[in-house]
Amino acid sequence: MGTTELITPDLVERRVAPPARMACVDGDVLAVEWADGTSGRFHRLVLAENAGEGVVDPLTHERLLDPTSPAADRHLGDASVTNDHHVEVQWTDGERTTIHGGWLHDWALGAWHHDDGVPAAQPWDTSTLAVLPTHDGPAAMADDDALETLLAEVCRGGVVRLRDLPTDDGTVLRVCERIGTVRDTYFGRSFDVRSRPDADTTAYTAHPLLPHTDLPTREMPPGYQLLHCRINECDDGLSVMVDGFAVANEVRRRDPHAFANLCATRWVHTNRSRHHDYRWSGPVVALDHRGELAEIRLLHALRTMPEVAEGATDAAYAALRLFTEVSTEPAFAIRSRFEPGDLVMFDNRRILHGRDRFDPNRGARHLQGCYIDRDDVHSRLRILQRIRIQHERENDST
Amino acid sequence: MGTTELITPDLVERRVAPPARMACVDGDVLAVEWADGTSGRFHRLVLAENAGEGVVDPLTHERLLDPTSPAADRHLGDASVTNDHHVEVQWTDGERTTIHGGWLHDWALGAWHHDDGVPAAQPWDTSTLAVLPTHDGPAAMADDDALETLLAEVCRGGVVRLRDLPTDDGTVLRVCERIGTVRDTYFGRSFDVRSRPDADTTAYTAHPLLPHTDLPTREMPPGYQLLHCRINECDDGLSVMVDGFAVANEVRRRDPHAFANLCATRWVHTNRSRHHDYRWSGPVVALDHRGELAEIRLLHALRTMPEVAEGATDAAYAALRLFTEVSTEPAFAIRSRFEPGDLVMFDNRRILHGRDRFDPNRGARHLQGCYIDRDDVHSRLRILQRIRIQHERENDST
Repeated sequence: MGTTELITPDLVERRVAPPARMACVDGDVLAVEWADGTSGRFHRLVLAENAGEGVVDPLTHERLLDPTSPAADRHLGDASVTNDHHVEVQWTDGERTTIHGGWLHDWALGAWHHDDGVPAAQPWDTSTLAVLPTHDGPAAMADDDALETLLAEVCRGGVVRLRDLPTDDGTVLRVCERIGTVRDTYFGRSFDVRSRPDADTTAYTAHPLLPHTDLPTREMPPGYQLLHCRINECDDGLSVMVDGFAVANEVRRRDPHAFANLCATRWVHTNRSRHHDYRWSGPVVALDHRGELAEIRLLHALRTMPEVAEGATDAAYAALRLFTEVSTEPAFAIRSRFEPGDLVMFDNRRILHGRDRFDPNRGARHLQGCYIDRDDVHSRLRILQRIRIQHERENDST
Repeated sequence: MGTTELITPDLVERRVAPPARMACVDGDVLAVEWADGTSGRFHRLVLAENAGEGVVDPLTHERLLDPTSPAADRHLGDASVTNDHHVEVQWTDGERTTIHGGWLHDWALGAWHHDDGVPAAQPWDTSTLAVLPTHDGPAAMADDDALETLLAEVCRGGVVRLRDLPTDDGTVLRVCERIGTVRDTYFGRSFDVRSRPDADTTAYTAHPLLPHTDLPTREMPPGYQLLHCRINECDDGLSVMVDGFAVANEVRRRDPHAFANLCATRWVHTNRSRHHDYRWSGPVVALDHRGELAEIRLLHALRTMPEVAEGATDAAYAALRLFTEVSTEPAFAIRSRFEPGDLVMFDNRRILHGRDRFDPNRGARHLQGCYIDRDDVHSRLRILQRIRIQHERENDST
């Protein structure tokens, strides 16, 4: 009789599985039906390396089985539903393994997918999103449900604003650390954005900033940026947020060839520091393996050459120009003034952010920022979902 | 008369350009020949947005020009070599711009490519690399040329060993910070590897570890891992290093279909912590846009399902099994004992690392590790090259 140790048993807590109603073997596949009408098909090779005697370390719940061992290649003989509504498998080598019904049900419902629990991006323009979605900052810091709501929203729309936070130094790091690991860069764990006379980057001047993404010079630019306003005495220098996914979709609608060019042409971005020499080449619009919008990468100030043959240069620049034009159209831009205590969190690989010109002589302006990667945000969101479901279940049972 | 401000002028220091000998306009292209016989062709659109009045901020050397402005779309009229061997361009709108010959020469020679200065990977097996390439640790910490040599070697072979470092706590962070920004993860800025009774990951047990890459649960796993030996009283538990690129090439040689499957099938890796829920799906072997080996992603202990249709499951597992078998063949593995004061630095997205079983009752074993991303290493390497060339030039002129 095999053990029922399974990898990541804590995930089983996430959903209450209905009782299994039927289990049978169909060649290489275990077929299961549940009382709620859901069903699933599970390949023997996946089952063999996830359940059985000695497969998983009971201490760490990590797999011990060597995938080249015979035990990883066993065949299904028979299957049945147990008295407590789990599934028992009989292997042709004689061993029996009881498999947790909740684990199979989660698998059948896609809970193992890498994007499970993460809301899909919903591109917006100002006809669907007129102002920044705004949340109470202190509530997000104190309450897990408030943070979960905020993180789900930032996955969908790519940008949220927290208000009424303290204006102390380091507030931005405290908000970020409540979510997960700060992404350190050569700008430091956090960075200060204000006009200064020794500026080594345009961000630290009073020049306007075209809508852009940060650190396109990196292989993987930071996923989310958090920008916290400590001081703002200027009424110019409005902050601009543009959904790069919406811009990409609009370019595709107006000129499919230009869109294809933006996905195909790799542009080199290079940094300028005397102490660093980062470069990366990538397309302005990157699609994932499913062909869906995955990433925008563009910062004109640091963009150098397109990696194309001479004859393809005109088309590459024409596509780039169209993308830039659309990205500066008012229909795509949310303009807002940073109030002290505001913090804007946005997907730096999707949302283009910019700033109108401002006059540094009219008052002080001090923003503090930091970065966190997308998957750190996703991990935190899944854990918050798990905690909430656990609480709901406990409340239901009292 | 336009200015000669150019983006990233500091890169010009890197190479001494020979005098330009000829410059002419060929339609949309500026053609230049140098005294050493090299030549280059430069498209007007690239020139227009990199050189000219108001194009670049003289303070930050970043581009100010809006790519949608008419000045970004000007045409070449004429070109000539100046008395001091640079190139003067006359635009059809009447403006003249002098362009630095070294900047054009660098461009012609590919100095702007994103992988310039970074040696290409040279896959190895034990017939070409029998022991870990070993460097003097204190020398690498004190001497820039020694560090440059080491970093170039780790780009080529994917692994180097530093010896005779101190065994204090934090040594691994000091070595890493000499290179660049530490990649923080949910394991912390650094992490300790030793057997412990409350292990929540196999690394912290005495179990053997199959050759693997770390953090395949992340969208971009850390580029390089540094592992520093503080204590090792065991004579078992040998460390194993395998070049995943060589393994991939060998799989391709033995079974091209299996290789193609490894490049195409996305496997989900999932973590196990109660406080984190990271997942990512990616192929075991990732190719870059040129079709060259770019990344290996595999950790059987955390690997869950392949994202394939039911009928494709057998082929996916067969390819995975072949890769795993080759990766454990002695011809691909360098086995070595960690001596206190050793530090091994390896490309975590290329080199599979493992550990033989050890008996924790025979003595203490304490490694301390941290991560740094590939592009941080590449930036540091380019800066060290630039410093060396600058010194060589200064020495030549004295």
